[in-house]
Amino acid sequence: MAGFETLAWRGDLPGALEIIDQRALPARHDLLRLETVPAAWDAIKTLAVRGAPAIGVAAAYGVVLGAQEALARGGGGDGVAQAALAAADHLATSRPTAVNLFWALERMRRALGRLVDRGVAGDGAFVARSLLAEARAIHEEDRATCRAIGRHGAALLGRGARVLTHCNAGGLATSDYGTALGCIYAAVEGGNPVTVLSCETRPLLQGARLTSWELERRGIPVTLISDGMSGFAMQRGRVDAVIVGADRIARNGDVANKIGTYGHAVLAREHGIPFYVAAPVSTFDLSLASGAEIPIEERAPDEVTTFGGQRVAPEGVDVWNPAFDVTPARLVTAIICERGVIQPVDEEHVMALAGAGGWCR
Amino acid sequence: MAGFETLAWRGDLPGALEIIDQRALPARHDLLRLETVPAAWDAIKTLAVRGAPAIGVAAAYGVVLGAQEALARGGGGDGVAQAALAAADHLATSRPTAVNLFWALERMRRALGRLVDRGVAGDGAFVARSLLAEARAIHEEDRATCRAIGRHGAALLGRGARVLTHCNAGGLATSDYGTALGCIYAAVEGGNPVTVLSCETRPLLQGARLTSWELERRGIPVTLISDGMSGFAMQRGRVDAVIVGADRIARNGDVANKIGTYGHAVLAREHGIPFYVAAPVSTFDLSLASGAEIPIEERAPDEVTTFGGQRVAPEGVDVWNPAFDVTPARLVTAIICERGVIQPVDEEHVMALAGAGGWCR
Repeated sequence: MAGFETLAWRGDLPGALEIIDQRALPARHDLLRLETVPAAWDAIKTLAVRGAPAIGVAAAYGVVLGAQEALARGGGGDGVAQAALAAADHLATSRPTAVNLFWALERMRRALGRLVDRGVAGDGAFVARSLLAEARAIHEEDRATCRAIGRHGAALLGRGARVLTHCNAGGLATSDYGTALGCIYAAVEGGNPVTVLSCETRPLLQGARLTSWELERRGIPVTLISDGMSGFAMQRGRVDAVIVGADRIARNGDVANKIGTYGHAVLAREHGIPFYVAAPVSTFDLSLASGAEIPIEERAPDEVTTFGGQRVAPEGVDVWNPAFDVTPARLVTAIICERGVIQPVDEEHVMALAGAGGWCR
Repeated sequence: MAGFETLAWRGDLPGALEIIDQRALPARHDLLRLETVPAAWDAIKTLAVRGAPAIGVAAAYGVVLGAQEALARGGGGDGVAQAALAAADHLATSRPTAVNLFWALERMRRALGRLVDRGVAGDGAFVARSLLAEARAIHEEDRATCRAIGRHGAALLGRGARVLTHCNAGGLATSDYGTALGCIYAAVEGGNPVTVLSCETRPLLQGARLTSWELERRGIPVTLISDGMSGFAMQRGRVDAVIVGADRIARNGDVANKIGTYGHAVLAREHGIPFYVAAPVSTFDLSLASGAEIPIEERAPDEVTTFGGQRVAPEGVDVWNPAFDVTPARLVTAIICERGVIQPVDEEHVMALAGAGGWCR
């Protein structure tokens, strides 16, 4: 359905991770071929690939890149396994907030652990092949997960619902289809003519550049607004529901997502509009009691002081650029995951649905 | 104090209105010399000069430009007066929301009416000189008004208060000093080391380009954030007060101001943070019972889809670009005007302080 492939493993072993360079969209649809761990780390760090689920999948393939490099250098089972673990440790430092990254890396580590336990980790090629199989499984599961989220979410949308979204939790943020936008796609596929208000999402404009782009490609009516217009849109009765993705969800249902999400959530409640979060179970961090414990990535000032490479603020001005904020569970009407809908959003209901499978240190 | 002159009348008669071209800031500090009514209209329309009070002053001088053109063509009293009225009518079409524009034009029309009533409108040069005197009076009063607003507002700020502001209600939005920023300047001049969080204010980035620029020039610590970060800043306890300007205030205290203001107001209330509006009495439109009646200017899509000529959204995407929103009176802790502080904000208290002098059709 997508008409684009956010990320794909090319070849077998040795192979490469090919991603759409999302920094260049919508002006150019460039593909990046990643063949080394540092290249994968850099792609995640600089948001060439972004979106919590997509970061997880990319990181899993990044571990395979580490393994195949060691294999190419003639490494045996031990060497390949060590290289894979080193790759996982390094990739974990790329971005601190999206927990799907750590969840996917942990799955890769466990796959490696199983090989060791079974006494079959002696052959480097076998280890590398097994890791590639695990990364492919994570990738495939993400596709299926998005479809399931889409089905559950679509059921929550009234006929012709006008949905406001922030950032990009679409096909570009996942293997395919998306989480928040997955609900939109599933609704449209089911014959519900929903439309979308896309917040541009400063500073990096994922809403303008990515969400508008993928909705337009799929023929779904989308209207672009600046982030500060969401309150006015709600005031004027132009929003029936808000759906966003998530980068990490604490045990009590507090949600870390792209900066600006919290403001939309407060405004939605002010206007009696449902506020939904769509995210796979891998986004839950069950080791955190609440959102207060979620580490918030702070990014470079030039993301705010420049716009398309052009300076928009005086030289030397102080900037604060947190990449995420935390929306408290009490503002979240429901969390839509692949297993169903968590509502009301509290620890009891989170644990009931996501208790097995959420990430836990 | 400013270190810059937002707008100034150069020469006597014939003279010209010289303005800082705010579209070019902060990259370039260009001056624009406006010698015709269409040039003044264009400068207001395209935001070369912006900010409700500054628009009022510029429009008043624009009427003088109309008068002096007629005088140069050899017009007598009647011709000059007709040209001035035509200029006022035309300038009124430049921007629909800021009521200070209509207020200033009405003052110019009344000055003209007084000349006619007194039977002294027969001499074209005299009429033009009288109109210039009235425009200069409006200009001077705006300076004094800002100083008074600053004094009243500064008294509301605690020691070292961290103030969040949106858009630019500073010296660049007025003749000098500013309304919202006037409160900051007065506080600092009074020895209170307040600091500012400046929201960049999409789509036209007045906060990044103008507010940061003028605060830096005055040595006041300013941190630039994206508009969507205000909620996070409040959540993290980094905001003690919000102060913004206004483009029109209804009789009941509802406030139209730059798009995004309403969201900050809802968030401020959520966090128990005072939300102040600083505006001269000329910003009150006493003919409107509530903010629902305030006309909201909608601007061109390319303000959202392009930046510095560079496209940031896919071609053909639908855009909604309202320039203002309306914050209901119940969210406004107080309105600071030159006559004092209106608190609580309701029709009774608005009329008590602004009832004489506010604009009324």
